[in-house]
Amino acid sequence: MAPAPSSTQTEELLRKCAKSVGAAQVLRGGDDQVATYCKDWTGRYAATPLAVVRPKTTQEVSEIVRLCRAHGVPVVPSSGRTGLCGGGMPIADHSSMVVSLERMNAVRDLDADGRSITVEAGVVLQTVQERARDSGLIFPLTFGAQGSAMIGGALSTNAGGSNVVKYGTTRELCIGIEAVMPDGSVINALTGLRKDNTGYDLKDLLIGAEGTLGIVTAAVFKLSPIPLTRTTGFLSLAALSDAPAVLNRLQDRTGGGVEAFEYMPRAAVDVICRAFPGIRQPLEVPAETGLFFEVASSRADDATQGDDGASHLQDMVFAVLEEMMEEGVILDAMIAQSEQQRLDLWTMRESVLEAITANGPAYHMDISLPLAAIAEFVATMDDAMANMGFQPLTVGHLGDGNLHYALSAGPGQDWKALPLERAKEEAFDLLLRLKGSFSAEHGIGQSKLDVMRKLKQESQLAAMRAIKAALDPEGLMNPGKLIPAEGGMVSPRQETTPKERTR
Amino acid sequence: MAPAPSSTQTEELLRKCAKSVGAAQVLRGGDDQVATYCKDWTGRYAATPLAVVRPKTTQEVSEIVRLCRAHGVPVVPSSGRTGLCGGGMPIADHSSMVVSLERMNAVRDLDADGRSITVEAGVVLQTVQERARDSGLIFPLTFGAQGSAMIGGALSTNAGGSNVVKYGTTRELCIGIEAVMPDGSVINALTGLRKDNTGYDLKDLLIGAEGTLGIVTAAVFKLSPIPLTRTTGFLSLAALSDAPAVLNRLQDRTGGGVEAFEYMPRAAVDVICRAFPGIRQPLEVPAETGLFFEVASSRADDATQGDDGASHLQDMVFAVLEEMMEEGVILDAMIAQSEQQRLDLWTMRESVLEAITANGPAYHMDISLPLAAIAEFVATMDDAMANMGFQPLTVGHLGDGNLHYALSAGPGQDWKALPLERAKEEAFDLLLRLKGSFSAEHGIGQSKLDVMRKLKQESQLAAMRAIKAALDPEGLMNPGKLIPAEGGMVSPRQETTPKERTR
Repeated sequence: MAPAPSSTQTEELLRKCAKSVGAAQVLRGGDDQVATYCKDWTGRYAATPLAVVRPKTTQEVSEIVRLCRAHGVPVVPSSGRTGLCGGGMPIADHSSMVVSLERMNAVRDLDADGRSITVEAGVVLQTVQERARDSGLIFPLTFGAQGSAMIGGALSTNAGGSNVVKYGTTRELCIGIEAVMPDGSVINALTGLRKDNTGYDLKDLLIGAEGTLGIVTAAVFKLSPIPLTRTTGFLSLAALSDAPAVLNRLQDRTGGGVEAFEYMPRAAVDVICRAFPGIRQPLEVPAETGLFFEVASSRADDATQGDDGASHLQDMVFAVLEEMMEEGVILDAMIAQSEQQRLDLWTMRESVLEAITANGPAYHMDISLPLAAIAEFVATMDDAMANMGFQPLTVGHLGDGNLHYALSAGPGQDWKALPLERAKEEAFDLLLRLKGSFSAEHGIGQSKLDVMRKLKQESQLAAMRAIKAALDPEGLMNPGKLIPAEGGMVSPRQETTPKERTR
Repeated sequence: MAPAPSSTQTEELLRKCAKSVGAAQVLRGGDDQVATYCKDWTGRYAATPLAVVRPKTTQEVSEIVRLCRAHGVPVVPSSGRTGLCGGGMPIADHSSMVVSLERMNAVRDLDADGRSITVEAGVVLQTVQERARDSGLIFPLTFGAQGSAMIGGALSTNAGGSNVVKYGTTRELCIGIEAVMPDGSVINALTGLRKDNTGYDLKDLLIGAEGTLGIVTAAVFKLSPIPLTRTTGFLSLAALSDAPAVLNRLQDRTGGGVEAFEYMPRAAVDVICRAFPGIRQPLEVPAETGLFFEVASSRADDATQGDDGASHLQDMVFAVLEEMMEEGVILDAMIAQSEQQRLDLWTMRESVLEAITANGPAYHMDISLPLAAIAEFVATMDDAMANMGFQPLTVGHLGDGNLHYALSAGPGQDWKALPLERAKEEAFDLLLRLKGSFSAEHGIGQSKLDVMRKLKQESQLAAMRAIKAALDPEGLMNPGKLIPAEGGMVSPRQETTPKERTR
């Protein structure tokens, strides 16, 4: 990283920035206002930038990037700051320029016939959802932070969430992008095309790059029809290894209608019920291997109710559950019979992180595995971790092979005395053997640089470093994120006491 | 490009290659066998390589790439050679090594529960389809050349086809990749993970890169349930601008069941009926704006037949057609009442290229547009082209916004006297204005380098060139393809008299 410029140079840079975006949109390191941009919601990453610049247009972003480059000042793109790995935070005091995209908050276009929406990077996710709804469609990307998270960050981390199993990740929803590259040039590919084979896939390269290859300024997303009916429930599985069979049968019978398929084993549900006395076990006999699911349909015939008040969709789901109970695959199951019951199940699912946090210190992993390997991973890990004195507390977007596997202290154990480093090593070794990923949907940021260095294939790291050096030769775009420095440098802050609010 | 090595150097390289893959798998420039690899099915691209090497394993591919690099010899990856733009052909005689992937033809894994298949680059597309079917699933990628096209080429061109509207392009179907990079290192990311946010998206960078960034050696693909019922038909639209409304209503009513949604205007159908007397107009009054469609479902309830023999799916489609006829959007429509009628419609659709070829010389464009812009493009172009003396012959995967727009000579016109260059200029100007793409699904190869240079944004070209130079600094991977050389060099062969067999 370039050294921080001297004070005169800084003043000159800030003067030029002010000329570009207006003096009111250049916040100095000393301002109270700046504090907002110095911390993300994890509370783990904090550093003071040289200044915060708030451009309103793509052209202004381009000017700022060019100015910073000319002055050798690193650029840290910032949007909703709801990331969990520190990707949107400066890594050192008084050295970099935070470029906040919050004023780029226009919905540029909504094409109801073409079912796409074009939004700027500073639009809050929830706003996109609302605008889609106003046009009789949905923008399906959904996760806990949607009231604060902005599109730029969602793209830069390739955010996932709870209905990826049906609609895909942010990458899969995005069909066009606009970005300012490290040299200040603008890539405008806001076409919304479903097919476009004209050279390298720059869109997907920029998505998930965490701002290290440029600043995403706008994007086009696919929109989907509004579901007309939903069937939501909870079931107890005889064995986790049967989960794919349940998922597949539900999918086939409903034409791919599964929107959520979440692993909620007994330990997690118990912790939730302890933390929130209002939440009760969904089944009379608590499920050792619980699955929370929601199936939806935008078909009118699926929403049609029979004499018993059940929709056709519910009848189909019910039939699958009944069959698989007869087969011994499902031990017990319930289907929400009212919107309130449905919301209660969602509340239970969404309370898990808060419950784990209330339960005591924990180490969280955001991992993914091939569906066929999930059962082996969980069985092996649960055993090994219990033997080390941990109590595993796991939930996960099972339909995507994505587990949020957390380690807490076992009964009577002192967290600080537990062999966390050994546990992590064992976990990551197993993950590697089973071809899993050590970051499924949260990205790398600062917190996972060590794991990245250790577990990512050298050939892949080399290719990433070459691409980074080619597009950003001075290394000024969001330095200290995503790509571990060569050699043995340890990342500044490691994820050991996460306060993840929502996963 | 590096100069061809002297004879002694060549002999040394070939000796080393033979040591790696076996002497029988190194075919010399003089061999009859080599001729197969010197021509693709377009017949437009032909050059003799130094030799053809046929590795059996990823390790052997890596060795060959390292050897060629050490000798400064360009590498041209070759699989089914069914591409339409010359991407798999050497560009000059006796200068490059063709690396044929045909012997890497193993299906490495089929995970029926996880619904994925892992195949090597030399597996023929149809073989993948068959293996999936054997396991009660489908591999949905489908296009005319599937009996010869191999997975490596499908990935390298990001092949599309006729059911992208439902299942996505090759890129969207691929969930893991293995590739040999230009330095000989191997990227093994055959995980099949649905979520994996650990750095830059190398998979999608390699897909569609036409072998210029490395050689794809294997991939994991998603599989889908077998459709249990299909409803296929043809309709006449009052106005092309209403096509998105028809598509959306069919999608909503059937839960996204549309598998094909193809534009077949009167001129194209007339040419087909003239070329193939066995094929008849599907509607009594020939449709000016015809649409061929197929809707499918893997739901058992959709396959259930009523007393009249019609499936529930057909009833739903019928209801949509009836409604939209009442609304005046659809003028006339038919639904295939037997498998034979269905196949007849498909035969008609698939005969179009042969019919256009039989009709006389033509210039073909493979373009895409936002759905909302299709009607304007077609109306403006059809007028302008007719005024210049052309007869436009267009079909297209309308559901993807993908048109195969062909220009033939109008009645009484001499093809050679028509202003083709001016027509192309007008077409591409309009395309640019409407935010379309000049290559929707066939890629760039050699044939579209000129258009690429002219129409692709300079910022995007610069990023692509930087990436190419970073990963392949010697420029040895499939040179002369995809990325136009800087400056005004004209590509060796331009696409003016295509013999595209299937689109």
